[in-house]
Amino acid sequence: MSKEQRARIDAMMRQPRPEGPRSVEELRAGFAALMARMIVPDTVRTTQTTLGDRPALRVEPDNGPRAGTILYLHGGSFVFGSPETTLSLTGHLVAKTGFRAYSLDYRLAPEHPFPAAIEDALSAYRALLERGMDPSSIVFAGDSAGGGLTVTTCLAARDAGLPLPAAIVAFSPGLDATRTGESMDTKEGIDPTFTRKAVEHTGAMYLAGADPRQPLLSPAVLADLTGFPPMLIQVGTNEILLDDSTRLAARARAVGVDVILDVTADVPHVFQSFAGILDEADEALDRAALFLRQRVRAECEAHTSAK
Amino acid sequence: MSKEQRARIDAMMRQPRPEGPRSVEELRAGFAALMARMIVPDTVRTTQTTLGDRPALRVEPDNGPRAGTILYLHGGSFVFGSPETTLSLTGHLVAKTGFRAYSLDYRLAPEHPFPAAIEDALSAYRALLERGMDPSSIVFAGDSAGGGLTVTTCLAARDAGLPLPAAIVAFSPGLDATRTGESMDTKEGIDPTFTRKAVEHTGAMYLAGADPRQPLLSPAVLADLTGFPPMLIQVGTNEILLDDSTRLAARARAVGVDVILDVTADVPHVFQSFAGILDEADEALDRAALFLRQRVRAECEAHTSAK
Repeated sequence: MSKEQRARIDAMMRQPRPEGPRSVEELRAGFAALMARMIVPDTVRTTQTTLGDRPALRVEPDNGPRAGTILYLHGGSFVFGSPETTLSLTGHLVAKTGFRAYSLDYRLAPEHPFPAAIEDALSAYRALLERGMDPSSIVFAGDSAGGGLTVTTCLAARDAGLPLPAAIVAFSPGLDATRTGESMDTKEGIDPTFTRKAVEHTGAMYLAGADPRQPLLSPAVLADLTGFPPMLIQVGTNEILLDDSTRLAARARAVGVDVILDVTADVPHVFQSFAGILDEADEALDRAALFLRQRVRAECEAHTSAK
Repeated sequence: MSKEQRARIDAMMRQPRPEGPRSVEELRAGFAALMARMIVPDTVRTTQTTLGDRPALRVEPDNGPRAGTILYLHGGSFVFGSPETTLSLTGHLVAKTGFRAYSLDYRLAPEHPFPAAIEDALSAYRALLERGMDPSSIVFAGDSAGGGLTVTTCLAARDAGLPLPAAIVAFSPGLDATRTGESMDTKEGIDPTFTRKAVEHTGAMYLAGADPRQPLLSPAVLADLTGFPPMLIQVGTNEILLDDSTRLAARARAVGVDVILDVTADVPHVFQSFAGILDEADEALDRAALFLRQRVRAECEAHTSAK
């Protein structure tokens, strides 16, 4: 079954798309239409709220959340996407962990280039802390550009002297604005979602002339991850962004950070979005949920026993 | 709690040991005494049996096993160890998965050097298949040298034209008799268990003059893993064997094999043996059990639907 599912999803992603670069409006509408086809579990409820200065979607299990808060950061190359487009992922994580999530509607490029998204995510984390939440009960999770934000927001939090969250989960994160990973070339034409040209097109809007050679833009190449919480990175073998993940995992290992690099073959970028359609998606999310429950439970116990 | 636990286990492993190389008998007795201190869950029962031409310990959950069979291969540098010394690991995997395990008492060096251990493990796998077991319900698991055997036995099974098992789990596997991993040098003095000298001492007994540059001795450097089942590799950052795991995972990714590289900081070689004492051990085994249940369930469903 599952090999057939992987092939079907791959073919679906390869369907013909409009030629040439699309306008920002077209990108946003096209992505919203694609992601609206994903399955959202019917055991979660959503509420519009705000976090810091930005709108956010609170996502909770129907039967009331248990301890644990996910700050979720959606994908979309920093140019498109929203809490709604990523609701399948956030909803499944909430359903599987029992945690509450806040999915942040951070500012997008080109209207708001780097470092607006990181500023908004850091403000959202500060807002959670200011509400009295224990950082050991908070985890960062995100996909694609939002997976990158889980890491860069944690860097920014560390640099700001804030306590760090209990864990990070990143699905197919974008972690290198220098685009120097080998997979950028070796997976070109194999990746059903991205080409170098496409990621450089949106990437330029986010950079807006900034030097990509800085940790907040290219953590897989430049960040010192010392002191980071345990990380789970999930990625597919066909992705041009594969080596963003492999290099970040190597950097984490090198400074003594617990890190799980969880690689699935022949699945597209952020394949977890296909939960309910692709077995690998549900299984990967089950592994992510176990990891998150382990980290929040462990940290909460450590905190309690230290009191 | 857990940072303290990691430090306590690390200190325990660093206690003074006899100077100089010990005899094979001393190595075997010392290892048996150390491992007898590990916790075996009281919800499993064991039975002496045979598998192929070798003794094996059958380990089952008290309340009767569900579908799924683990062929377990113990650690001990191919020179010491037995199904009894590894019973904590096998027992916890059985308790957490609900599967039955066969822990094989394969022949040891120096009396029986390479490839005796692989021959025995392959014979054991053949014996399971000849009993009518579906390969999609069988998984290979092992620690240290036995973690290496999970991979080399799978290579040997593929080369023999046998169907492959549903999954591989390897705890701190030894995968490189050429000893060329960077961690062999960078972790020397940091690894509380091993030195290069120690692994080369026992390694020479297993090699008995064989050229280490062959896939069955150094799969992390030389094996083509094409067609391998999904793999989970767990290892600690302080191990001189760390890069055996990182390189095998890279080789697996390169040929489209699903692979999870699960790295925990500041824990000793095969830290999962400390289940019941070290939180990280129990958590790592829970992740391994989820992985195994996902793979056996998925494979069995695929097999059933294909009928």
